[in-house]
Amino acid sequence: MLLGRVAGTVVASRKEPLMEGWKLLLVRQIDTDNRDVGGYVVAVDAVGAGVGEVVLFATGSSARQTEVTRDRPCDAVIMAIVDTWEVGGREMYRK
Amino acid sequence: MLLGRVAGTVVASRKEPLMEGWKLLLVRQIDTDNRDVGGYVVAVDAVGAGVGEVVLFATGSSARQTEVTRDRPCDAVIMAIVDTWEVGGREMYRK
Amino acid sequence: MLLGRVAGTVVASRKEPLMEGWKLLLVRQIDTDNRDVGGYVVAVDAVGAGVGEVVLFATGSSARQTEVTRDRPCDAVIMAIVDTWEVGGREMYRK
Amino acid sequence: MLLGRVAGTVVASRKEPLMEGWKLLLVRQIDTDNRDVGGYVVAVDAVGAGVGEVVLFATGSSARQTEVTRDRPCDAVIMAIVDTWEVGGREMYRK
Amino acid sequence: MLLGRVAGTVVASRKEPLMEGWKLLLVRQIDTDNRDVGGYVVAVDAVGAGVGEVVLFATGSSARQTEVTRDRPCDAVIMAIVDTWEVGGREMYRK
Repeated sequence: MLLGRVAGTVVASRKEPLMEGWKLLLVRQIDTDNRDVGGYVVAVDAVGAGVGEVVLFATGSSARQTEVTRDRPCDAVIMAIVDTWEVGGREMYRK
Repeated sequence: MLLGRVAGTVVASRKEPLMEGWKLLLVRQIDTDNRDVGGYVVAVDAVGAGVGEVVLFATGSSARQTEVTRDRPCDAVIMAIVDTWEVGGREMYRK
Repeated sequence: MLLGRVAGTVVASRKEPLMEGWKLLLVRQIDTDNRDVGGYVVAVDAVGAGVGEVVLFATGSSARQTEVTRDRPCDAVIMAIVDTWEVGGREMYRK
Repeated sequence: MLLGRVAGTVVASRKEPLMEGWKLLLVRQIDTDNRDVGGYVVAVDAVGAGVGEVVLFATGSSARQTEVTRDRPCDAVIMAIVDTWEVGGREMYRK
Repeated sequence: MLLGRVAGTVVASRKEPLMEGWKLLLVRQIDTDNRDVGGYVVAVDAVGAGVGEVVLFATGSSARQTEVTRDRPCDAVIMAIVDTWEVGGREMYRK
């Protein structure tokens, strides 16, 4: 999994029927210092995340192992909202 | 999933039988500012996308979770045509 | 899927039994202008491709969705020989 | 699999129910000279690793093949604590 | 699949039980000119490879399609020892 910050939303009305009901969020990847690292992914929201929140997201087939994404064409899912992380005993982020 | 712009088409007559009936499109990856970022992928079209359209595509095993690609050798699928996206409340693209 | 040019062949006699009967080809990735982009992959040939031909190849679990690769340790397969592709209405390659 | 050093911990209370009970660790990838190479991953701990330890981690669908991660949305797992490795007969690391 | 050179060995005694019995090898990726390209992977040996040998390895879920790795947390496997390869009719390597 990777850390990311929800940057925005994506809307698509003409789509694969199995995508119905998904909330699609733009997630920017961040590093362990809480800085943007350049990449992004469009992920399905499985936990009710909002713009600006720091989240944990999974990619690949593992992204299909949540209730909202199982057996659907999803390769990225937001699976948790991050409370805090620390590196070497030092807190780097707190919600 | 990633955002992309349909750049063109690919034709292949000598192919794996399971590919029969696919429309193959060249998709260039774009960033959240709607700019080309250099990479491309050849994706199966699952939604009737046309050249120039901005789409959402999935890769890997998730690309096999649509009606036209299930259990077939597909590692990239166009699953939606994008209407709009916004970043930080600002609309970055509208169809 | 990606576009590639068959660059050569690989021979391995001591191998996983499930690889028996495979033709292994070296494939260089090309861009949409038909230029080498630096990477390569060793792919199983599922369509009778020859050295110099431009092909379409799939990677990951999707590479196991052909008759010759199903349930075998294959992560890259040549699934089609490309006839032509075009970008923005302009033909970039013809066999 | 890749070699990594456990750098810290991640806490998330609002999450996919299937993540319940996981210990999430920040793992920095290291090279064969035991140096950081820049990337990180948030991995599920399957072996009781601690901060500072050198570990082996798997990514992708293979990360779901342990007892704690099976059929759950996990794309990275710490599967072993490394005792030692050697390159060309020379020991590069010992726990 | 990719070409690699076995560079060394990794030992881990505290590990996922499903890893029992694996021989773990450090493999450096090589290019089609038989030169190191910088990356490495820790792969399970499925064919009895030794340090210094040039091998073919698979990654991702395909790495679990051998007898020693099936249904186990393996994302990289050495599946063949390479005898020779040629590029454009010219032999680039012979064992």
